[in-house]
Amino acid sequence: MKWKAKVVIRLKEGLNDPEGRVIGKALKNLGYKVEELKVPKYFELIFESEAPEKDVEEMCKRLLANPVIHTYEYQIEPLGE
Amino acid sequence: MKWKAKVVIRLKEGLNDPEGRVIGKALKNLGYKVEELKVPKYFELIFESEAPEKDVEEMCKRLLANPVIHTYEYQIEPLGE
Repeated sequence: MKWKAKVVIRLKEGLNDPEGRVIGKALKNLGYKVEELKVPKYFELIFESEAPEKDVEEMCKRLLANPVIHTYEYQIEPLGE
Repeated sequence: MKWKAKVVIRLKEGLNDPEGRVIGKALKNLGYKVEELKVPKYFELIFESEAPEKDVEEMCKRLLANPVIHTYEYQIEPLGE
């Protein structure tokens, strides 16, 4: 069966997100009252699996995220065809 | 009032996403049946506004997205405090 997953990988609290800081500052300079802007990594994937939760969890652990500095969350839904 | 927005900025259909291709291939090499993997840009921001939809729409148009190559979508919710 085919699935679609959306994976968000965030830096742990307190870690430096320079890209987010720069973009947040640019938006402030344009006049928006931005208090905080973060740029997590974000993946959308389509895959085939009999155990989609297990597979996505493993993909995060093995390749997509670095557990030392990241937290991750994901949503999985069946791919309507 | 304060709001939290999540903004996803995707490359238009047919445009090259080399980072996604490489990561998808790496997952395949690990044994997962990944058919497609994309790496949209993703922003999470907290901001103050009286017109949050208008502001986020403008931020996308003016800074976050390039309308020539990107499509964007966003979700906005009140920030619970």
